[in-house]
Amino acid sequence: MSLTFIRRPAGLQFGGVDVRQLADRAGRTPFFAYERAAIDTRIRELRSLLPPGVHLHYSIKANPMPAVVHYLAARVDGFDVASAQEMAVALNAGAAPADIGFAGPGKSYDDLRRAISSGVNVHVESETQLRLVTALGWELGVQPGVAIRINPDFEVGRSGMRMGGGAAPFGVDVDQVPALLRELQARQVALAGFHIFWGSQCLDAATVIQAQRQSADLVARLARGLSEPPRFVNLGGGFGIPYFPGETPLNVQAVCEAMHDWLPRLCERVSGMTPILELGRYLVGEAGIYVCRVIDRKVSRGRTFVITDGGLHHHLAASGNFGQVLRRNFPVVIGNRPDGVPQQRCHVVGCLCTPLDRLADDIELPEAHIGDLVVVRQSGAYARSASPLHFLSHPEPVEMLV
Amino acid sequence: MSLTFIRRPAGLQFGGVDVRQLADRAGRTPFFAYERAAIDTRIRELRSLLPPGVHLHYSIKANPMPAVVHYLAARVDGFDVASAQEMAVALNAGAAPADIGFAGPGKSYDDLRRAISSGVNVHVESETQLRLVTALGWELGVQPGVAIRINPDFEVGRSGMRMGGGAAPFGVDVDQVPALLRELQARQVALAGFHIFWGSQCLDAATVIQAQRQSADLVARLARGLSEPPRFVNLGGGFGIPYFPGETPLNVQAVCEAMHDWLPRLCERVSGMTPILELGRYLVGEAGIYVCRVIDRKVSRGRTFVITDGGLHHHLAASGNFGQVLRRNFPVVIGNRPDGVPQQRCHVVGCLCTPLDRLADDIELPEAHIGDLVVVRQSGAYARSASPLHFLSHPEPVEMLV
Repeated sequence: MSLTFIRRPAGLQFGGVDVRQLADRAGRTPFFAYERAAIDTRIRELRSLLPPGVHLHYSIKANPMPAVVHYLAARVDGFDVASAQEMAVALNAGAAPADIGFAGPGKSYDDLRRAISSGVNVHVESETQLRLVTALGWELGVQPGVAIRINPDFEVGRSGMRMGGGAAPFGVDVDQVPALLRELQARQVALAGFHIFWGSQCLDAATVIQAQRQSADLVARLARGLSEPPRFVNLGGGFGIPYFPGETPLNVQAVCEAMHDWLPRLCERVSGMTPILELGRYLVGEAGIYVCRVIDRKVSRGRTFVITDGGLHHHLAASGNFGQVLRRNFPVVIGNRPDGVPQQRCHVVGCLCTPLDRLADDIELPEAHIGDLVVVRQSGAYARSASPLHFLSHPEPVEMLV
Repeated sequence: MSLTFIRRPAGLQFGGVDVRQLADRAGRTPFFAYERAAIDTRIRELRSLLPPGVHLHYSIKANPMPAVVHYLAARVDGFDVASAQEMAVALNAGAAPADIGFAGPGKSYDDLRRAISSGVNVHVESETQLRLVTALGWELGVQPGVAIRINPDFEVGRSGMRMGGGAAPFGVDVDQVPALLRELQARQVALAGFHIFWGSQCLDAATVIQAQRQSADLVARLARGLSEPPRFVNLGGGFGIPYFPGETPLNVQAVCEAMHDWLPRLCERVSGMTPILELGRYLVGEAGIYVCRVIDRKVSRGRTFVITDGGLHHHLAASGNFGQVLRRNFPVVIGNRPDGVPQQRCHVVGCLCTPLDRLADDIELPEAHIGDLVVVRQSGAYARSASPLHFLSHPEPVEMLV
């Protein structure tokens, strides 16, 4: 006699697996899961559109999980890091030091020493950093890899978060670059590259195209006076992903088509220089979910609250408290009934004792019961690592790459 | 021949020590320091004003550093905890289980099991929690300590953060309380207490007084139908501290004077019930500083940026990104030149690669040099524990009790 298993209704599939099985694999809720296939597809599509010769870097700060960085190490051309620990993760993942760029407005002496010793490119963002780096090069007996990060002299319009154009702690103003170049020459240090970062989380192709064209012009101007062209230029990233209702994905095809136009001209003006695109959120943001479990459900003054074991301590961005001015709901589904008909307005909240701990406000969902899994999409970047994990001392969420 | 040490100009004194010595004790910057004397003074002053018989609880979520909790264990009458781990810290500090209250809208089965087994009072906030708690009592063979947390039916005006009055995930609506009381009785579980939490971070004495009076009325009404009065009532806290220019300290004397009026009447109406004040931020918030070091200084488009090795990963609240709608500067001083004349407008920023990482915007300070210590006051509560420590993978800040 053969046994027949009763098939349960399909849950949300993620990484080819039912999200309930993922919960069992995690051993507990809440957890984050990141999908290899989604990351891979994103990179393949992008590569197929980009002009040949463009290097793709992953910005580790978007998601520093070592397994994610290892997976990406075989698929991108280099990494951008924002701390010595991120640098260590990149090196452990097998990246060549010359393909790692270390940026950040506040690098400590220890950071710089570790970077120079490791052979990583330091993107200097001030005269102080430049002097420390060249001094460390002499002290350690190594030619330091020095790039100059530039606060561009143009301002972009509709980027989600501008990081250039006005007064900024990032990079050096364009008019200060010649002095830094002279100082490098005086200290017999070659310039490895330029780095221009104009913004992030931009969904408007025209804005990205304009910023890239202006960055290319700026680099061509700056490179004109050099005896030797720099080895690379990091043109930043800025590619956004849609989070909220009404947002449409960035038209990457249009961005890449424009690159086919302006990039050859840049390469003509500055020969032998490798252009780098630095992407974080765009590569992994849509490849991740946050999953928590409904542990209670109650009605207060006519409103239904679905209470989960998750919350802002794991996912500050989804609660609307990480740089957002207006709180909006991340996309949320009931993972074990993804095809359920929305039939109930409710508030999905976390387990913390604070009114800030909201995962979805006034949302239509299939009726959610205790034990159900709440899945927050678009949670692959700036989620776990940008959250106050110790707030109220609850357990940390599990992380998995599937 | 005797040596004479050259005395350096006095730095900011904290805990009777120069802040530069504290930095040496910490071994590195950034660090948080909390001052025993300030906590002690605050509690003594409060005790001298409060009517006799009022119990003072410390809400651990404000600052869960074990040394702080230990220090408070000898000075308060009990603790309020918001997670099983906070409960463990309270028990390790020597608190009696009966003097610990466990509140929170999302308590998991494990949380509740640990609490009931430990003899801690569970402040149930839903029918689900009540059923789980009583079932666990039977299963574990212990009489569970059960309080009911009530979402009050009044709304307070000018509290910094309202947590009652409207529809809320916290507590149960007043009209649902009788059903819970009947259910407790049916399950042969005695009611240990009531818990009413109406808001937090309130600087207006009249608001606090009104909320307390209304809470007392509510409790008296609810207790009327009980065969036995509850052992305690937790009247919440809500006492705020000033953070920003223009804010004045809460007039605690006025609050306590009013208590001398309404409390005896409450005790008359419900005899034998201990009133509890639950304070977190008010006890420790002003007793803490965050100290980071200036590691760079640069000018961009005419504006001066003072760049520190600290940032929002350690102190999200000071960056204006933890529940604040308008960003305002926490009080900031140069710790090694506290008497320096402000003579420079500048922006004090952290070391992170994000425009959100600002510690003080457009502030007048004595000219700050590399190596100087930037001190952020009012950093004893909801600072380190409410921050995304792993964001960009920089080292964690040291914590000290001095």
